[in-house]
Amino acid sequence: MNPLFTARTSVEQVESGFLLAPKFDTNGLIPVVTTDVNTGEVLMHAYMNEEALVKTIETGEAHYYSRSRQQLWHKGQSSGLVQKLQQLAIDDDQDCLWMQVKVAGSGASCHVGYRSCFYRRIATGKSATDSQQPIQLVFTEEEKTFDPKTVYSDALNPTQL
Amino acid sequence: MNPLFTARTSVEQVESGFLLAPKFDTNGLIPVVTTDVNTGEVLMHAYMNEEALVKTIETGEAHYYSRSRQQLWHKGQSSGLVQKLQQLAIDDDQDCLWMQVKVAGSGASCHVGYRSCFYRRIATGKSATDSQQPIQLVFTEEEKTFDPKTVYSDALNPTQL
Repeated sequence: MNPLFTARTSVEQVESGFLLAPKFDTNGLIPVVTTDVNTGEVLMHAYMNEEALVKTIETGEAHYYSRSRQQLWHKGQSSGLVQKLQQLAIDDDQDCLWMQVKVAGSGASCHVGYRSCFYRRIATGKSATDSQQPIQLVFTEEEKTFDPKTVYSDALNPTQL
Repeated sequence: MNPLFTARTSVEQVESGFLLAPKFDTNGLIPVVTTDVNTGEVLMHAYMNEEALVKTIETGEAHYYSRSRQQLWHKGQSSGLVQKLQQLAIDDDQDCLWMQVKVAGSGASCHVGYRSCFYRRIATGKSATDSQQPIQLVFTEEEKTFDPKTVYSDALNPTQL
């Protein structure tokens, strides 16, 4: 095990301890929620492997593990939209991270061009479900902040069906 | 497929469409980030299956799938700390949800007794990694908002090693 992490020996130690004992899943990944430190907006949900977590802690810039490219991903390397780490937290059972960041440049974090990846809300309530028809999405961001074709040219789109 | 969802047929449709086409993983689950609508604080990170997502949309109260109990989980059923849905959003590739809620009662969402599950921050920077010793955690919530022993009595602790 990486000497920066400690072994998980008891529920008490994991929930109430003072040492980092992260749980990576069977693929070696831990989910991370990234929010804008100023607005509280959730920008993205992604994954880190051990290397990405250590790089993030060490450099103060968000690193993830790209599942589509299967490699370490220094966010902003292609787009310039680097995420500067402001605070990193871990949850009770240490199987999820919360990263608060400031984003460089236009402030966008989504490969589609929006500020947040969560640019659509879901219609809710009984009126949304009673008809038994597909539920509607409503765009909450009106405009893209950049043109992904210009920024990423022909890079692989990470969305998978 | 549930008639409330639509099939995933193209990247364009998933990223830019107006219909809900969620991607559940091989275990039938989709991750969900839950934040407090007033403070923007991330309260928890959990999972929904199809049933939990439909129940949440229909009732306006957060339902999850409990991986430890392997069953539908109406949050607050034991503790009274129900999460009232304010807004539900989905991300670009529709494989993650963001739920903004108001929490009933004391406002807590964490089974350990804290308001947020993310009650510890991780020490960061080169000073945290240079020693090659286990990285420290620092508590950011000073007090528990309730006593989990009183609220949950002998219910199963969801934390797994």
